[in-house]
Amino acid sequence: MSGLYHVLGAKQFDRKELEELFASAKGMEQVAQGGGSNRFPNKIMSTLFFEASTRTRFSFESAMHRLGGRVIGTENASQFSSTIKGETLEDTIRIISGYSDLIVLRHTEIGAAKRAAAVSDVPVINAGDGSGEHPTQALLDLYTIQKEFGRIDGLHIAMIGDLTYGRTVHSLSYLLANYRDVHLSFISPDNVRIPTYVKKYLDENGISYQETIDLEGIAKTADVFYQTRIQKERFPSPEEYSKAEGKYIIDRKLLDTIKAEAMILHPLPRAGEIHPEVDADPRAAYFRQAQSGLYIRMALVEKCLTTMK
Amino acid sequence: MSGLYHVLGAKQFDRKELEELFASAKGMEQVAQGGGSNRFPNKIMSTLFFEASTRTRFSFESAMHRLGGRVIGTENASQFSSTIKGETLEDTIRIISGYSDLIVLRHTEIGAAKRAAAVSDVPVINAGDGSGEHPTQALLDLYTIQKEFGRIDGLHIAMIGDLTYGRTVHSLSYLLANYRDVHLSFISPDNVRIPTYVKKYLDENGISYQETIDLEGIAKTADVFYQTRIQKERFPSPEEYSKAEGKYIIDRKLLDTIKAEAMILHPLPRAGEIHPEVDADPRAAYFRQAQSGLYIRMALVEKCLTTMK
Amino acid sequence: MSGLYHVLGAKQFDRKELEELFASAKGMEQVAQGGGSNRFPNKIMSTLFFEASTRTRFSFESAMHRLGGRVIGTENASQFSSTIKGETLEDTIRIISGYSDLIVLRHTEIGAAKRAAAVSDVPVINAGDGSGEHPTQALLDLYTIQKEFGRIDGLHIAMIGDLTYGRTVHSLSYLLANYRDVHLSFISPDNVRIPTYVKKYLDENGISYQETIDLEGIAKTADVFYQTRIQKERFPSPEEYSKAEGKYIIDRKLLDTIKAEAMILHPLPRAGEIHPEVDADPRAAYFRQAQSGLYIRMALVEKCLTTMK
Repeated sequence: MSGLYHVLGAKQFDRKELEELFASAKGMEQVAQGGGSNRFPNKIMSTLFFEASTRTRFSFESAMHRLGGRVIGTENASQFSSTIKGETLEDTIRIISGYSDLIVLRHTEIGAAKRAAAVSDVPVINAGDGSGEHPTQALLDLYTIQKEFGRIDGLHIAMIGDLTYGRTVHSLSYLLANYRDVHLSFISPDNVRIPTYVKKYLDENGISYQETIDLEGIAKTADVFYQTRIQKERFPSPEEYSKAEGKYIIDRKLLDTIKAEAMILHPLPRAGEIHPEVDADPRAAYFRQAQSGLYIRMALVEKCLTTMK
Repeated sequence: MSGLYHVLGAKQFDRKELEELFASAKGMEQVAQGGGSNRFPNKIMSTLFFEASTRTRFSFESAMHRLGGRVIGTENASQFSSTIKGETLEDTIRIISGYSDLIVLRHTEIGAAKRAAAVSDVPVINAGDGSGEHPTQALLDLYTIQKEFGRIDGLHIAMIGDLTYGRTVHSLSYLLANYRDVHLSFISPDNVRIPTYVKKYLDENGISYQETIDLEGIAKTADVFYQTRIQKERFPSPEEYSKAEGKYIIDRKLLDTIKAEAMILHPLPRAGEIHPEVDADPRAAYFRQAQSGLYIRMALVEKCLTTMK
Repeated sequence: MSGLYHVLGAKQFDRKELEELFASAKGMEQVAQGGGSNRFPNKIMSTLFFEASTRTRFSFESAMHRLGGRVIGTENASQFSSTIKGETLEDTIRIISGYSDLIVLRHTEIGAAKRAAAVSDVPVINAGDGSGEHPTQALLDLYTIQKEFGRIDGLHIAMIGDLTYGRTVHSLSYLLANYRDVHLSFISPDNVRIPTYVKKYLDENGISYQETIDLEGIAKTADVFYQTRIQKERFPSPEEYSKAEGKYIIDRKLLDTIKAEAMILHPLPRAGEIHPEVDADPRAAYFRQAQSGLYIRMALVEKCLTTMK
């Protein structure tokens, strides 16, 4: 429905909007730490998760509660009875949008959020659509970088791991295309390289990047190490997975080679690709990053609920 | 417990009570569209779904939230741990009724809601009991007819599809028995005809009806087409299912033959028995019908919470 | 995190603290029956259930709502996506503690709650950790005894059934070690006897107890019969289970032999070890006991949320 503010993909954000969002998130940090607000006492968020993601769901639901709102949710796709019975996503959304003021959608198919927004009477937030995008994760990633470095322009950002199926990397790359003099390094095994369409987008936006299989080669120069999990569940075969798995580990030894002011991020959960011995290092920013997810989502929820039809 | 107001089956409603309920639902429409109320800030609804039904559960939970209340719920029977451990429904209800002010129960067995009400200290609403009844669905169906036609008396209502396992058809038939000069047409494959006990109830109440396998035959005269899904999961065998499936489809071609002021209803979800090309036709009332579910359930929740022990 | 008040195991409670808690629970009874309070309007409880337990979860969530708070929850471990992806409990808790003000944890492993508390920024309540402990159940059991007998000192308490895997029995034994002149009888089949470490704790605290396979032998003298379910899911093999199952049944016949003022408790759910014919007897206290779970949990939630870091 036209006039609604949806969060569907990273490309919809320009620099001005990002800066406004980050300012709002900073304010939300105060609200949350002050015990929450009573901003939306009668608003209802539906969390429709066709693919389980407890962390992301909790983050959104907490954001809604911290703003005084209400939540109705389903934690698991396989239980979504209407879908089992053959209902289309469009029909589901038409109904659910009549019961709530905001829909947070996690789905297994690329483009699901966009299809949902096309028929919804209320705003839709994409909380991950298959191997497509995960824009709110990318927004919180970027917010963490901005917050800890005080800037994004001019940084060298290394993205590591599964760059084919890792949708947060795609979304983050699109967001970074709004900044000046950033340089991206894509470090991955050969069978899970960054997709051509992402590189094309970076080219069109004049963003400098390189692809490599060599983590050590960029260790000394990168400002941000964005580590990702090799997501077994998204690989076409166990063979392809085993080729990619376990190639890049961030451990104490690597820490000794990187910049003193570098930052290590990870969308989490991690399996073994960041050793726990790294946790105590001040450059390990991933738990602060997860916490920032709450503030970014509070800011997005507020924007969705106040940008008028 | 005597003195509580339960919603267990369609037969408990007489015409006067239906009219009061519809007046209340009309008021709830205003409440919901005005952003909800703070009617029951400290009341807790338990949604006990021993059979998944996201849509129905969301509808009830939204109704409770729109009235300012609180919800504790379980979305899936198979996770209901106490049942796995061999607990009776009665024991479960005895406990849960101590933790909440209202129980919404979806169960796989006929009569479950009645058994629950017999031991509960709080009101119980039947949200579907096996192939038994689904009274709140029937109430919203009837409310939609009343709202869009301005009356129910005198209408010709065709119910189409699986009339054996389709519990909403049974419940709606019972409700219609309260009205004057209605005529019911039951259109179904031979192996899923309307049960004898429903026909007996209609006979006892002097309601005119016919059974037929021929949808075209009633197309010109019916005011309401109540289409239903052939529910695979309720059939005794795949063979019986395949006999019934795909027999009656509402599509553009059928639309051309029905009355200009007819109305198409469906309890949803639909699988393929109403073609999406029908959606844009003003006679396609099924999404408005689903929306009305919220208002009816708000009215029922209020009635349950205010009719005193 | 130091300074937080966690509920991890029964041994952390001394008599003074138990008496304070019971006084608080008594007050909560008034609060709940008066329709709840608005004590914690902006606080969020996370219910993290890695093992399904609808009853316990509902009890905690109801407690939080009765105090005006909010809940985000997951009802089923097997859906906990991050765990499937290989995340440690510690990482999960670090994240979730940033989204909520209190964590209620049910887990399959002994010691899980303690591990969680070690990394959490918010209080953790152990809602059962494998065959370890279930302190809030034991607290409500003890509260029920105190409430109905007016005292605990001097009572003869018989615990019956699976005393190896029945964690509530362990926790209750630890709590009872705070009282004077209590005598414990442990009645179980030989393959599920009370563990040595529990007996050692009782010895250290000078508590009198006996072990027997003979329920009739203690029937005349026991004040409290604490019956438990033989938990099939905790046995190493079906053979071990069948040895233990069905040995002790509380029925009408047994009732005739016990004291007039005795009390029958059960943590519920029951499978068949208390015959329904017992329910109507005034000595059958198990449903009142379940109801008391709400008040004890309200008291514990308040204590966790108000004992400052």
